[in-house]
Amino acid sequence: VLRYGTAKELVAGLEVVLPDGQVWSDLKGLRKDNTGYDLKQLFMGAEGTLGIISAVVLRLQPRPKTLLTAWLEIGELSDAVATLTLLRSQLGDCITSFEYISGQALALVLEHIPGTRNPLTDTSGHYALVELAAFDDGGSLSRDLQSALETAIVNTGVRDVVIAQNETQRRDLWRLRESIPAAEKRAGGSVKHDVSVEIDALGEFVDLTLIALAAEFPASQASVYGHVGDGNVHLNVLAPASVSPQDFKRECAVEVSALIHSIAIARGGSFSAEHGVGRLKRTLLAETADPIALDLMRKIKQALDPKGLMNPGKVI
Amino acid sequence: VLRYGTAKELVAGLEVVLPDGQVWSDLKGLRKDNTGYDLKQLFMGAEGTLGIISAVVLRLQPRPKTLLTAWLEIGELSDAVATLTLLRSQLGDCITSFEYISGQALALVLEHIPGTRNPLTDTSGHYALVELAAFDDGGSLSRDLQSALETAIVNTGVRDVVIAQNETQRRDLWRLRESIPAAEKRAGGSVKHDVSVEIDALGEFVDLTLIALAAEFPASQASVYGHVGDGNVHLNVLAPASVSPQDFKRECAVEVSALIHSIAIARGGSFSAEHGVGRLKRTLLAETADPIALDLMRKIKQALDPKGLMNPGKVI
Repeated sequence: VLRYGTAKELVAGLEVVLPDGQVWSDLKGLRKDNTGYDLKQLFMGAEGTLGIISAVVLRLQPRPKTLLTAWLEIGELSDAVATLTLLRSQLGDCITSFEYISGQALALVLEHIPGTRNPLTDTSGHYALVELAAFDDGGSLSRDLQSALETAIVNTGVRDVVIAQNETQRRDLWRLRESIPAAEKRAGGSVKHDVSVEIDALGEFVDLTLIALAAEFPASQASVYGHVGDGNVHLNVLAPASVSPQDFKRECAVEVSALIHSIAIARGGSFSAEHGVGRLKRTLLAETADPIALDLMRKIKQALDPKGLMNPGKVI
Repeated sequence: VLRYGTAKELVAGLEVVLPDGQVWSDLKGLRKDNTGYDLKQLFMGAEGTLGIISAVVLRLQPRPKTLLTAWLEIGELSDAVATLTLLRSQLGDCITSFEYISGQALALVLEHIPGTRNPLTDTSGHYALVELAAFDDGGSLSRDLQSALETAIVNTGVRDVVIAQNETQRRDLWRLRESIPAAEKRAGGSVKHDVSVEIDALGEFVDLTLIALAAEFPASQASVYGHVGDGNVHLNVLAPASVSPQDFKRECAVEVSALIHSIAIARGGSFSAEHGVGRLKRTLLAETADPIALDLMRKIKQALDPKGLMNPGKVI
């Protein structure tokens, strides 16, 4: 998303089976077409409630020749936002990933995923995984990255840096990030969230939420990670060590989610950055969305699927 | 568009005054939000027929430090497509502009716009204006560009290259491209078109259209220019030297446009890549669009603006 855009933005054409069985098809893949309403945008993210997407044309991007991957220790989450801003101003838009990993999330991975190794010494800090793409051997970008990180150490709270020296090291760093969901599962499971706020508000949002969680659910553990450039964090909550994960989820999941979602919504954020509404969050959408937006959505649903045939009971 | 995406893709939020006077507002500027239908996409490009856009949140991009600008002579339009593909594979996505200029369009500019100068010797060929953005002093990118252009000379029909050595030369090159509409106007005006086809089909589409134009409207002149990376050309037709521009436009404009649009549509293209439908192309949309698409558009229009208050008589 950071570099190439969201999945929606990379779709150049769709074919959709409509509620009445007719097929609307726009698979021409034109980069620009301003003839009438942009229908494809309506079907994407509608979760099948307006029609069934049966074909897609995607825009592709040239494949980079070199990837530079760095693991950063930072002072706090808001340093990740500041560091991304700095790197973008110095290096431009060659940054393809900028992922935040909390110390707790890292500790879960190191504990539960065999063969993972801490690139630095402890897990008490906050971490970021940065990747840059170059279309040459990366020599020049590598020097620029080094110099930008030196500035970041002085100005944006970067405390330590490890740069992958080869593909194995690169994969090892990514494994730390990508194993977080599996580590949470092995630890007994978590109450999962997928929230986004304005990027600049990310640090404050997570800090506030962790304070509220500690007050309401003492000793619960938070595994926080996400896509800094998208303002999108997964703030997953695990049971206190003294409580069984099953009991915690059964007794607290609804309240934990209500707490986190209410803080996100109060700050103008979204309770579902990536994963949609479905059945699980339908009530939440109905309760928290702008009534004018809900009315527009219902009018569109009614106009395109008057009999309510498509994926009934989902979204609205 | 080539580098940063279309205007629509850069919009992070909208405020819209709806037909019933209510205001729908989503100015939170979230990078990712998958809660319900993506309403903003519906209002963009609807040309005010569903509501009046009253505020916009835009995503910005870091400003490049260096721009490298080159003027290429190429063998034919399809060489421009091949050269862009080559440059993207060698240089990545630092290419911010790749504009095609036909020899006729260039000749019009040199004749009618004071102070313009041909960077090469004649105007009998085809030309491309390329711009690349770097976030450093551009030294490394400049060497890579030079080497990529050497490959392009061997493989993709590039015949000659001029690289701007300073900001004045850069502006002079851009002026050649940007003065084309003014030059057409000073030459008496043109019958204008704004068509797009699949990028790979661009060269063949324009070649075919020029052959058809020469057969149907002998001695008419075509000024062709456009955005190669978007598959979007402006194929504007000027009167033969022996006919007054006013007479040509009065007598031939409708047929010239019908010819060009029919070729574009037959090849899966769009008769309005950028400029929309409005009143002028409403009949064309009704006659040529997929009836299923038109039906969806009418249902949406009816659902959101049942009284037909918004920009009546436009689009559908």
